[in-house]
Amino acid sequence: MDTEEFRRLWDELDPIGRLPGGGYLRFSWSEADLACRAWFQEQARARDLTCESDRNGNLYAWWGEPGSGEAVLTGSHFDSVPHGGAYDGPLGIVSAFLAIDALREAGDRPRRPIAIAAFTEEEGGRFGIPCLGSRLMTGAIDPDRARALTDAGGTTLAEAMRETGADPEQLGPDPERLASIGAFVELHVEQGRRLDGEDAPVGVANAIWPHGRWRLDFTGAADHAGTTRLPDRRDPMLTFAFAVLAARKEARLAGGLATIGRVEAEPNATNAIAATVTAWLDARAPDEAVLSAILTGFESKVTERAGRDGTGFAIRPESETPVVEFDAGLRDRIAALLSTFTARKHRRGGGAPILPTGAGHDAGVLAAHVPTAMLFVRNPTGVSHAPREAASDEDCAAGVDALAAVLRDLAC
Amino acid sequence: MDTEEFRRLWDELDPIGRLPGGGYLRFSWSEADLACRAWFQEQARARDLTCESDRNGNLYAWWGEPGSGEAVLTGSHFDSVPHGGAYDGPLGIVSAFLAIDALREAGDRPRRPIAIAAFTEEEGGRFGIPCLGSRLMTGAIDPDRARALTDAGGTTLAEAMRETGADPEQLGPDPERLASIGAFVELHVEQGRRLDGEDAPVGVANAIWPHGRWRLDFTGAADHAGTTRLPDRRDPMLTFAFAVLAARKEARLAGGLATIGRVEAEPNATNAIAATVTAWLDARAPDEAVLSAILTGFESKVTERAGRDGTGFAIRPESETPVVEFDAGLRDRIAALLSTFTARKHRRGGGAPILPTGAGHDAGVLAAHVPTAMLFVRNPTGVSHAPREAASDEDCAAGVDALAAVLRDLAC
Repeated sequence: MDTEEFRRLWDELDPIGRLPGGGYLRFSWSEADLACRAWFQEQARARDLTCESDRNGNLYAWWGEPGSGEAVLTGSHFDSVPHGGAYDGPLGIVSAFLAIDALREAGDRPRRPIAIAAFTEEEGGRFGIPCLGSRLMTGAIDPDRARALTDAGGTTLAEAMRETGADPEQLGPDPERLASIGAFVELHVEQGRRLDGEDAPVGVANAIWPHGRWRLDFTGAADHAGTTRLPDRRDPMLTFAFAVLAARKEARLAGGLATIGRVEAEPNATNAIAATVTAWLDARAPDEAVLSAILTGFESKVTERAGRDGTGFAIRPESETPVVEFDAGLRDRIAALLSTFTARKHRRGGGAPILPTGAGHDAGVLAAHVPTAMLFVRNPTGVSHAPREAASDEDCAAGVDALAAVLRDLAC
Repeated sequence: MDTEEFRRLWDELDPIGRLPGGGYLRFSWSEADLACRAWFQEQARARDLTCESDRNGNLYAWWGEPGSGEAVLTGSHFDSVPHGGAYDGPLGIVSAFLAIDALREAGDRPRRPIAIAAFTEEEGGRFGIPCLGSRLMTGAIDPDRARALTDAGGTTLAEAMRETGADPEQLGPDPERLASIGAFVELHVEQGRRLDGEDAPVGVANAIWPHGRWRLDFTGAADHAGTTRLPDRRDPMLTFAFAVLAARKEARLAGGLATIGRVEAEPNATNAIAATVTAWLDARAPDEAVLSAILTGFESKVTERAGRDGTGFAIRPESETPVVEFDAGLRDRIAALLSTFTARKHRRGGGAPILPTGAGHDAGVLAAHVPTAMLFVRNPTGVSHAPREAASDEDCAAGVDALAAVLRDLAC
C-alpha cells in the first residue's frame, strides 16, 4: 500500500470532530458522529458495497452477498473519548476500506462475504457504557437499560437516537446477524509502546485484560470552610484523595492498572466543605486474580479510611469485563501470515509479535461468540485517548497490507 | 421582640431561592437575588424608609435624611453559597428591619441617620471573589477586574448586571458614600458553636482571621487509563490527591484551617488519565504567621510531590484578606451593653461573649474605613454554608433586641 493512498483517504475523515487543540469530540449520535456515518456510506457507495445499519445503530458495508456464507467481519468504531486522539477506532475503518481496495486491485474475489463494521459508542464517552453497540447486538446489555442511559446533559440514549431519526425501540440482541458472522478481525492503533520496542509495525493480540469501571460515592457533611474545626469535619474530599492514592498503590503492588480520572464534588464551592464527592475507578490487570486483589485491597483500605474521616464510602460496578482470550488458532495463523511485516532481526520463528492489551474493544465483546482477532499498528508515542496518539503513514500502510493479507487468507 | 413577630417577617423571605432539599441558591444577580431585592424595597416602602441602590448594586434603606450626619449602618447580604443555609446573610437584614420597628415602637428617634444595607455577592458564590460589593465600594478591587469576572457558565459580572437592567459601567469606589458612614454593625448567625458552649444567645466579634483563596493548577498528560504503564504516567490527579491531604495536615500542625472543596478535572473521562486538575484552596488561621506557615508548608510539599509525579503544579492567590481587628472601643461598649442578653451564670464581668471568626464578612472590608462591629446569634448545630445551619426563633428575637439596643446607643 502506497502511503499517499492511505493519506488521501485518511485526510477525508480526519477533520471531522477535530478540536482546535488537536483532540477529538466524536460522541455517538452527535453531529460529528453523523458526519462520520455519512462518510462511511459514501465510501461504501463509491466501492459499490451494500451499506446498512443494524437495529443497534452499527453500520456495515458488504463486499459480497450478505448471508451467502459466513462473513469475515472487519472494522472498528468512529466515536472518541472527549479530547481523544485521531487513530483509536477510525484507523480500523479506513484500513478496512483500503484493504478491500488492495484485494480488488490484486484481482482477489471473496469466497465468502467480507463486511466492514462501524460499531457505535465503543468508548462509552457519551453514555458511560463502553462497547455499547456490540454489547446490544450480542445481548450483553439489556436494551431497556441502554435506552435509559444518560449523557452529561441528561439526554437519554433513546432521545439522542430519536433526534437523529433512529428508532431506539429497535435496540436489542440480533442473533441472526451474529450467526451470519464467521470471524471478526479488528485493526487498531496500539495503545502502548510494545511494538515500538520490538521494532515491528504490526502485531497480533492474544488477550484483553479483564477490566471494569466502578462508581465511588463519598458522602460527608457540607459545612463552612472557614469556621468548622478540623475535628468536627466529615470531609469526603479527604477520603476521595486517599482513594486516588490507594488505587494507585494497590495497582502498583499487584501489577495491574488503576486510574481515577473523573471526579465531581457537590456543592463544589471554594468556601464550603464538600457534601459529596463522586468519582469513577478504572481498573485492569493481566488476570482476574490480580484485578480482584486490586479491588479488594482498594475497598478495604478506603473503607477503613472513611471510618477515620467520619465519611460514607460506597463502591459499585458500572461495567465489568472478564478476561478475553482471542481464538488461538486464528491468532497463530495471523501471526505466521504477518511474518513478512516484522522487520525484526532478532525474533525467532519470524511471526509477528503477539501482545495482550489493557483496553477493551468490540473485538472483546464479539470474541465470546465468533472467532476473533485483533491487529495492532505501532504507536511510537504509546499515548492513547489523547491528541498525542500517533502512527506513521508507513506503519498505517503496513497495517492495511497486513489486514488485506488476513482477509485474503480468510475469505478469498 | 416577640418570636412570632420575628417568624412573620422571616417567613416572607425564607422561601426565596430555597431548593427542595432545604439548601439555598441565591447567587447574586440571579432571579432569586432579584426577588430578595424586591422584598427589600417593599420592606423599606412599608416603613417609609428611603431606598436606593449604590453604583455597585448594594441596596440601602434609610431611616433619617441621608447625609444629615454620620450614619450608623447595619445589615448584611442576601446571596448564598450553592446549597447554603437560610441564616448566613439574610438574618442580618431581617433583624435590621425588625430592630428599627422596635426602636420606633419604643418611641426612639435617630439623632443621626440609620441605614440598612444589603451588600451584593458577599459569598463570592457566583463570581469567585467574596465581599465583592463592599470591596468595590471601598476601592479594594479594580472595577475592570470585577466586570470581567465570570460565573461557572461563562457569564461575566458585567453581562449578568446588564441582563437585570443594572449598569456595570458605574462599578467602582464610592468615597463620598463611605465618608457618610460613621459606624457599621453587622448581625450574623454564628458559624461555630462557641456561643452554644457559653450558653449565650448573642456575642460580639473581636477579629476576623486572616484568610484567602488560592487557585491550584495541576497539569499532566492525558493518556489511556487501560494501556499506559504506571511508570509512564504523568497523572495530575495523584498530585491533587496528595495536595488535599497535605493541606489538611499543614493546617492541623500549624493550628489553622485549610479546605479543598472545589475541583474540576479535564477531560474528566473514566477511561482517560486526567490532563489537568484545577482546584481551589481555602485557608484561614488565627494570625498571619500561622496562615503563612500553612501556605509555605503546603506549597513546598506539593511542589516536591509534583516533581515525583512528573506533573506541573502552580498556586496563585485569588483573594487574600489580612487579619481584621474590629474597633476595640465599639466592641467593648457593645459587649457591656449586651450583658443583659447573656444568661450565663458563670461569666465574670457580665458582658456578652467576645469571639473571633474564621469567616470573611463585609464588616471585615468596611472595618478598614469605619469603626465596625459584628454581633453573632447562637447557632446550635455550628454548621454554616449548608442546610443544617440553624438559629432558634428565641435567639433570633434576642438578636433583634440586641441590635436595637446597639442602634439606640449609637444613633438615638
